[in-house]
Amino acid sequence: MSVGIVEEQSVTFATDLRLESGRILGPITLAYETYGRLNAERSNAILVAHAWTGNAHLAGRHGEDDPKPGWWDAIVGPGRLLDTDRWFVICSNVIGSCYGSTGPASINPKTGKRYNLSFPVITVRDMVRAQALLLDHLGIDRLLTVLGGSMGGMQALEWATQFPDRVRSAIALATTSRPSPQAISLNAVARWAIFNDPSWKKGEYRKNPKDGLALARGIGHITFLSDESMWQKFGRRYSARDGLFDFFGQFEVERYLTYNGYNFVDRFDTNSFLYLAKALDMYDVAWGYESLEDALSRVAAPIQFFAFTSDWLYPPYQTEEMATTLRALGKEAEYHLIPSAYGHDAFLLEHETFAPMVRDFLARVERG
Amino acid sequence: MSVGIVEEQSVTFATDLRLESGRILGPITLAYETYGRLNAERSNAILVAHAWTGNAHLAGRHGEDDPKPGWWDAIVGPGRLLDTDRWFVICSNVIGSCYGSTGPASINPKTGKRYNLSFPVITVRDMVRAQALLLDHLGIDRLLTVLGGSMGGMQALEWATQFPDRVRSAIALATTSRPSPQAISLNAVARWAIFNDPSWKKGEYRKNPKDGLALARGIGHITFLSDESMWQKFGRRYSARDGLFDFFGQFEVERYLTYNGYNFVDRFDTNSFLYLAKALDMYDVAWGYESLEDALSRVAAPIQFFAFTSDWLYPPYQTEEMATTLRALGKEAEYHLIPSAYGHDAFLLEHETFAPMVRDFLARVERG
Repeated sequence: MSVGIVEEQSVTFATDLRLESGRILGPITLAYETYGRLNAERSNAILVAHAWTGNAHLAGRHGEDDPKPGWWDAIVGPGRLLDTDRWFVICSNVIGSCYGSTGPASINPKTGKRYNLSFPVITVRDMVRAQALLLDHLGIDRLLTVLGGSMGGMQALEWATQFPDRVRSAIALATTSRPSPQAISLNAVARWAIFNDPSWKKGEYRKNPKDGLALARGIGHITFLSDESMWQKFGRRYSARDGLFDFFGQFEVERYLTYNGYNFVDRFDTNSFLYLAKALDMYDVAWGYESLEDALSRVAAPIQFFAFTSDWLYPPYQTEEMATTLRALGKEAEYHLIPSAYGHDAFLLEHETFAPMVRDFLARVERG
Repeated sequence: MSVGIVEEQSVTFATDLRLESGRILGPITLAYETYGRLNAERSNAILVAHAWTGNAHLAGRHGEDDPKPGWWDAIVGPGRLLDTDRWFVICSNVIGSCYGSTGPASINPKTGKRYNLSFPVITVRDMVRAQALLLDHLGIDRLLTVLGGSMGGMQALEWATQFPDRVRSAIALATTSRPSPQAISLNAVARWAIFNDPSWKKGEYRKNPKDGLALARGIGHITFLSDESMWQKFGRRYSARDGLFDFFGQFEVERYLTYNGYNFVDRFDTNSFLYLAKALDMYDVAWGYESLEDALSRVAAPIQFFAFTSDWLYPPYQTEEMATTLRALGKEAEYHLIPSAYGHDAFLLEHETFAPMVRDFLARVERG
């Protein structure tokens, strides 16, 4: 069942945040939504962390006429995987984003102008520190679990390593302890596409630099799909509107990238896109530690990992390495490799496959 | 041993060419080089076909001071794999390119101006038809072999299927019967990067649109390498010149793409790049036939295929499919899968690995 009509909330913290870079960011606002009820013991809270271009609107609708439910509505609601009859589910928009939380498009109170490139470079660790302020605000000491895919999975890992006492478990899907140079290089050309757009103006645009941002997003879509899913979805079909020998004629896959790229321009801020891309590339769970072992030795809670066979952005071997390392350290780590043609996007689409395993895992965590 | 000092030659044909698109292209000029001597029987000719941005300068140097030998010098020369003491080796620049053959940057004799986008869309089949005119010009009826990697491999396949009587064998490396939608999509975003550059001016630039072309080439480099080779070459190292928290700071892999991208601007015409990218994407050995089987049933000569384990642009399964299909048709087809971390570029780098197999294959072909 759907959670029904929901409302976005927002909180601004009194405390500034010292970032990994050493810079201070504040005041910080976080947009968030919650579903279900916090119990008297405040022990039934689940945090869902979103990916690169996600937002706090995880489930339900913002009004009767809202045409689209939240981004992962399928798993949140009464009787659904994250059962809001039992659990209190929270989703907050990360700092650096443009959906209500403090990011480069926010007004810097010190100058009265948008931060733009004066916004500090942030890391996934910084995002999670800001979320910890939100938990304080909600009076939640410890999460039943923190769950997320892709950049959301990185946040789950940061919760497990940076706040080991505040999570009873973590569930990380389609993620990595650190993106490979191939993944970095694909974000690098996406950045470059934006830098090349004269209307970007080093971040001082009034309107999104649409050609650069659309291309950057188009490149992203290549990494979200897979060779397999592209064969299934498009094959080598040529657009029916174009002649095969037209210079500007397009393959179907090309039209898909163009269409989705330009669609994105209306819904995401270019500078936010760049800051979050950088946070993704820089992500390393072992940042500041001697090694992956050293970082993961901080973990206290059991972690459940899911990887997807056709995910070439954060390939399964990277997830498996974390599970293996945790187990070698005597920690509880589950690793599930899900056969899927959907590529990186699989984590949003294969919930029927992984739901039973998540359900079992959470039942075990609750039993303690 | 090196072939020494060589000279580029050029020929302009009297005949126009009817292209796959139905359009007529002419007059056509081809730039080419030859090494070794054609024997009295004219039976010892080998054609080497180049890849996307290659040229006719396969081996040797253009003068005593020439700092760099031809692009595949390592395999051509007295005593080398393509032994110029025994064989007459030819390499010609494809039509559509910008290294001496007729392409979009050539002057259209009908208008006295550069073709630019009035140049017709060409296919790999058209390139090979133009090469056939060169063989006629050189008085060569039949090739001992035609060898090439990537787009060069596609040309080898076209020789084997379109001119089955004119080749005694073919050797195709790191190629495909048709690029996958993933490969197409990576070229699509490269094209898009150029279209976005205002200085491209729909092809009517005076100087290469450098930012667009450099980015397009940067995207290409991602597809030429592999996840594995990027780990080996760059890992996640951050440029020593940049601060980790600089907004414009770069990873080493990012600097590599930028550096090679901008280097390319001085050596290749943007419109040529676009026309050849389109020819690559449109390539389908079965174009005009019922099926792959139908197309390959035309083959008369033995074909030797090489694929490379980490080549994700034209993955091994695509090569294997051709070999399997040929064998099912009762044709002679060898398939070698070479373990290599170099990705698509492996075909230029792993010659020591495949040389013995090519040598054996050519010996068998010569014995007949």
